[in-house]
Amino acid sequence: MSLNSFGHVLKFTTWGESHGPAIGAVVDGVPPGIALSEADLQPWLDKRKPGTSKFTTQRQEADAVRILSGVFEGVTTGTSISLMIENTDQRSKDYSAIAQAFRPGHADITYHQKYGVRDYRGGGRSSARETASRVAAGGVARAVLKALLPGLTITGYMVQMGVKGIDRSRLDLATVGDNPFWCPDPVAAADWAEYLDGLRLSHNSVGAVIEVVAHGVPPGLGAPLYGKLDSNLASAMMSINAVKAVEIGDGMAAAGLTGVENADEIRMGPNGPEFLSNHAGGILGGISSGQPVVCRFAVKPTSSILTPRRTIDQTGAEIDLVTKGRHDPCVGIRAVPVGEAMMALVLADHLLLDRAQTGGLRGRIG
Amino acid sequence: MSLNSFGHVLKFTTWGESHGPAIGAVVDGVPPGIALSEADLQPWLDKRKPGTSKFTTQRQEADAVRILSGVFEGVTTGTSISLMIENTDQRSKDYSAIAQAFRPGHADITYHQKYGVRDYRGGGRSSARETASRVAAGGVARAVLKALLPGLTITGYMVQMGVKGIDRSRLDLATVGDNPFWCPDPVAAADWAEYLDGLRLSHNSVGAVIEVVAHGVPPGLGAPLYGKLDSNLASAMMSINAVKAVEIGDGMAAAGLTGVENADEIRMGPNGPEFLSNHAGGILGGISSGQPVVCRFAVKPTSSILTPRRTIDQTGAEIDLVTKGRHDPCVGIRAVPVGEAMMALVLADHLLLDRAQTGGLRGRIG
Amino acid sequence: MSLNSFGHVLKFTTWGESHGPAIGAVVDGVPPGIALSEADLQPWLDKRKPGTSKFTTQRQEADAVRILSGVFEGVTTGTSISLMIENTDQRSKDYSAIAQAFRPGHADITYHQKYGVRDYRGGGRSSARETASRVAAGGVARAVLKALLPGLTITGYMVQMGVKGIDRSRLDLATVGDNPFWCPDPVAAADWAEYLDGLRLSHNSVGAVIEVVAHGVPPGLGAPLYGKLDSNLASAMMSINAVKAVEIGDGMAAAGLTGVENADEIRMGPNGPEFLSNHAGGILGGISSGQPVVCRFAVKPTSSILTPRRTIDQTGAEIDLVTKGRHDPCVGIRAVPVGEAMMALVLADHLLLDRAQTGGLRGRIG
Amino acid sequence: MSLNSFGHVLKFTTWGESHGPAIGAVVDGVPPGIALSEADLQPWLDKRKPGTSKFTTQRQEADAVRILSGVFEGVTTGTSISLMIENTDQRSKDYSAIAQAFRPGHADITYHQKYGVRDYRGGGRSSARETASRVAAGGVARAVLKALLPGLTITGYMVQMGVKGIDRSRLDLATVGDNPFWCPDPVAAADWAEYLDGLRLSHNSVGAVIEVVAHGVPPGLGAPLYGKLDSNLASAMMSINAVKAVEIGDGMAAAGLTGVENADEIRMGPNGPEFLSNHAGGILGGISSGQPVVCRFAVKPTSSILTPRRTIDQTGAEIDLVTKGRHDPCVGIRAVPVGEAMMALVLADHLLLDRAQTGGLRGRIG
Repeated sequence: MSLNSFGHVLKFTTWGESHGPAIGAVVDGVPPGIALSEADLQPWLDKRKPGTSKFTTQRQEADAVRILSGVFEGVTTGTSISLMIENTDQRSKDYSAIAQAFRPGHADITYHQKYGVRDYRGGGRSSARETASRVAAGGVARAVLKALLPGLTITGYMVQMGVKGIDRSRLDLATVGDNPFWCPDPVAAADWAEYLDGLRLSHNSVGAVIEVVAHGVPPGLGAPLYGKLDSNLASAMMSINAVKAVEIGDGMAAAGLTGVENADEIRMGPNGPEFLSNHAGGILGGISSGQPVVCRFAVKPTSSILTPRRTIDQTGAEIDLVTKGRHDPCVGIRAVPVGEAMMALVLADHLLLDRAQTGGLRGRIG
Repeated sequence: MSLNSFGHVLKFTTWGESHGPAIGAVVDGVPPGIALSEADLQPWLDKRKPGTSKFTTQRQEADAVRILSGVFEGVTTGTSISLMIENTDQRSKDYSAIAQAFRPGHADITYHQKYGVRDYRGGGRSSARETASRVAAGGVARAVLKALLPGLTITGYMVQMGVKGIDRSRLDLATVGDNPFWCPDPVAAADWAEYLDGLRLSHNSVGAVIEVVAHGVPPGLGAPLYGKLDSNLASAMMSINAVKAVEIGDGMAAAGLTGVENADEIRMGPNGPEFLSNHAGGILGGISSGQPVVCRFAVKPTSSILTPRRTIDQTGAEIDLVTKGRHDPCVGIRAVPVGEAMMALVLADHLLLDRAQTGGLRGRIG
Repeated sequence: MSLNSFGHVLKFTTWGESHGPAIGAVVDGVPPGIALSEADLQPWLDKRKPGTSKFTTQRQEADAVRILSGVFEGVTTGTSISLMIENTDQRSKDYSAIAQAFRPGHADITYHQKYGVRDYRGGGRSSARETASRVAAGGVARAVLKALLPGLTITGYMVQMGVKGIDRSRLDLATVGDNPFWCPDPVAAADWAEYLDGLRLSHNSVGAVIEVVAHGVPPGLGAPLYGKLDSNLASAMMSINAVKAVEIGDGMAAAGLTGVENADEIRMGPNGPEFLSNHAGGILGGISSGQPVVCRFAVKPTSSILTPRRTIDQTGAEIDLVTKGRHDPCVGIRAVPVGEAMMALVLADHLLLDRAQTGGLRGRIG
Repeated sequence: MSLNSFGHVLKFTTWGESHGPAIGAVVDGVPPGIALSEADLQPWLDKRKPGTSKFTTQRQEADAVRILSGVFEGVTTGTSISLMIENTDQRSKDYSAIAQAFRPGHADITYHQKYGVRDYRGGGRSSARETASRVAAGGVARAVLKALLPGLTITGYMVQMGVKGIDRSRLDLATVGDNPFWCPDPVAAADWAEYLDGLRLSHNSVGAVIEVVAHGVPPGLGAPLYGKLDSNLASAMMSINAVKAVEIGDGMAAAGLTGVENADEIRMGPNGPEFLSNHAGGILGGISSGQPVVCRFAVKPTSSILTPRRTIDQTGAEIDLVTKGRHDPCVGIRAVPVGEAMMALVLADHLLLDRAQTGGLRGRIG
């Protein structure tokens, strides 16, 4: 079965193929009375859209989003919100060469095996193009969060490109938008430009690590045991194309810590509990603690490359494949706004979900 | 809201607190006619149960599982299967000292904040004791897999304890059961015994990395885009107590690879496609490829330690807390059978889910 | 697939067979801090339990319910609540005669066809015994409603037994508990006693119509378009054993009305809108209007009767079957508390669901 | 919360308001390889579309459906199928008079109360226009059924208009399309034309009863206990605008039968069990028996009428309201294809759902 929906009470459903007439999302469960227009969504899509630098695919898409339902006179009505983005720059003929072949490291072969039929144009449904629908839906989630949790912010950035990480002592979120990589370390950003250009020109690609942080998340979000906040974030991020790992807080490094080191000690501040560290990434027992929620994910290198790789085609013939077309040398770059969108969608969903059970009440301390 | 169910068509729901009368699970959607008895489930529970070495909590629990419904004359009937495990060794008085305090790094504080009320005895619902219910449910999933995919195997083991990893050149799955750590490297196992003993005696604890591998998974399992196999595994593993990261295949290391390196090249073997490497961990585009499915997760150190840490209590008073009681110095040890159970549950669920949409048909190659 | 769960955010899952060791339910999503004990649940079970008059099955069951989780020191904790009722008076040998036969009008044949295997003892999972689990879960829902909507009442009663209806001019809800039929018309009750006795002695059974009314339901409950309040009530009531029809408000009779007659006109009262009639049964567009919610359902006659009927067995042999054992001559009697329980479960679920999206805010009138 | 999705594994989600730019549906879980084109869907939409006789609203809509995803080279790919129908004949100005008023018997008031804001143009989301999305989705379900159960047929027709029923001795399904009412009794159809014309000219409207029958349903569909086939049909039909009651088989009349009368006796035929009657409407214990599945539902009269009725507006002022605009004198007429669509969607969903658990295997008889 395909399962194209995500979320518990703020649900979204996406549809569309890379080279079909359009892609889109239906967002359900949005509270009524939230200010929303296409102008609120477009900036997020612009952030993700291709063709903005030589480091992303040269496909040109306006990625103009339309709201087809659920909004009346500038506010949400509580009914399902349909979002549509037309595809305008499909070059299906680019794909005729690989229509029968399976790109190594790509979903071509598993879609064929599962469904027996596939839309091979641009990867069809498995294309990263689908993530534009998520970004549009994420814009709706941001509008909900803006109305209900005004102080909340969500920021995504790249902390590692290939083998090159950032220097966290130089981390400056204000610089994230100053380079094409959403890199928060200006020195690393300059280095990465040269590094990625070299990879691109040598017909190669490279992976990346993205970090998404949410500040201003109230304590109490998360639905143990199988709707834990971290569990839902893991599911959300792992569902993004090419993602192979998800970390919360210290992530894999937590395995190397002792209990003494890992304990985020607590003191009492003027506004309630204050933690002296955040190894936990803002989530304890699957519930937000009020600290920043910190999530990282690893994106593998783009599998569509100009270097020949050994593979087979549908007839079982062994071939050497070179993937032409317009591909991202580091698809992790465009995963940054997608990771932000998924964070917004998960947080907005849990905010509403929590209202169902607890009515938003909170246990007192002090 | 709490969400105590997991799965799409093979669903399970767990219930029970650490120090209540019992814990259990209801497993729904199991195919009829599957051989199943309590004797099929008990060995998995015995593998997880506490008190079997000095490296796990000294709480003594028989963990005897009873099947209360859904099985008649030795086979499943297709109705919901209720499993119950009585708690027999609760020492609630151990917890009176921490009834009002919040252990640093523990869910005490977030449960209090979310629900305003909590069963503080042994962590209540947030206790790792709940994982016994998962292991019981996982036993049902294994029975389903055994009947429908006879060749499938699932093996979990620890590949890192604290800062000490295994040497993969010595990895021998046959030795996993020979040591109390489920360590597949006999040399590392001996080293870990001394290492963990030292940590335990110094009133400390430590994290771990667990790897779970499934061999014999057919191609085609997974439900893009939001029920991808890797996305559901990430959710499943991250829902286990103390887990902070989940990796598929190369995981975080995939970020450091180039597209040339990461491409799992394909040749044609006598029985169909053969991959020359498995960076992908057996999953492409969220669908199994027929290669072994490889999943790893990091477990943070036990937060209940005898070393004093700074924290607060419900009145807001700042205190230094020492957690007495019977705790695991490396809770990752007992996470091994839990990780196996979650892998079994996810695979069985997707096997049935795939029958819904494709009827189990597969695209031909060659 | 079997689907043994019901509800959106207040979900319950039931398990158990007529002649297994126990039956039960897990209720999830209950708000924390709600007063709850076994003493709150038992009265509802006592109302449904068999063997209390000659007009119900003579099976003797204490139907003592135990709470195994989710409640601590007298209040709910927000975790899943496990309820168990042991079966104490199973006489499996009563069923050996019909183990291979299919009772006409009973689920025997369809369970066999679907699952290939069935627990034939007492109907197994298809037995009306399962409804005790619903009544227990319904008791939890009533506790939620009592805490959050103190003025709400739910009353079920029988308005028709076989061909004999009540006279609505004599309807007096205060008399419902004065007769074994939950009949609100004392004259009809006396008539029914004789009528049913005659049917029982002639080895026959009969159907019934049950009405369940909820007073004090606030406007705004219901989740269009596919979680409408009436749609969920229809699903809930139709899921009860032997139910063949569900009506809201005027129900089938609405088809015979004109628009002029059917319009529930509205005037402005001191506390808001007041409707001059209630053809709609308190639901417009799938959302409660603030009027009493009125639901009726028809229960077919018990299929297990002592009069021989023509049928077949598993070998395909044609036989004449007489069903011995202890059966209800009018199973509709015991459906009354079950209908009440389902009403409580649906209303509590929608009350919480509405908090998720609207936060309980309401559009002003006047 | 709004819940705009329906189904278990074949799910659809609808969106759109009466006077927005478009309406549509996303259908998920469709098996791959099913032949599907817009030409397969359009005939069902044409059957439902308004303006085809003087007995339906005079709104003119082409109701041209577009497939935007999920179909490639004439067959389904297993990905989500997006369907869109543009609204072309909205006359929003017709509604300015009632923008602030609540039509008696209409969802105007409950939408206002629940959401605080509503799209008043043509009823917005509560308009029967939404049912066009269901009919389009139903066309996809029919394509699935055609491929997997070639002999299955679904036929809907009106059996009662207002107080006038059909004579079942004259029931001839071949004549259903010969009159504007989908009436299977030609004599009744002629009578109804005069009857409805009179009502229409006297500024009134009237209710109806629709019957939908599916022939060729295999035994074994349905998912007890809370996904029973009849329970899901009840939910599906009750979710249609203006429906107030749902019956399966004998429906409400089952209450008046004795067990002897109600028993559908069984004999052994050449191809398996044969039932001698069908009081059950083809469903026993929530599972199809192989007999025709018979479902009826009552539609209340259109609430938008030209006769003045007493009501209030948002300010709380008491007014007399006449609803102008283009309304159906008997909205039950257009509910016929909608009921068929819902039947197709429920059956296709359960067909796939059953494959998940049982793999389609069936218990043998004989």
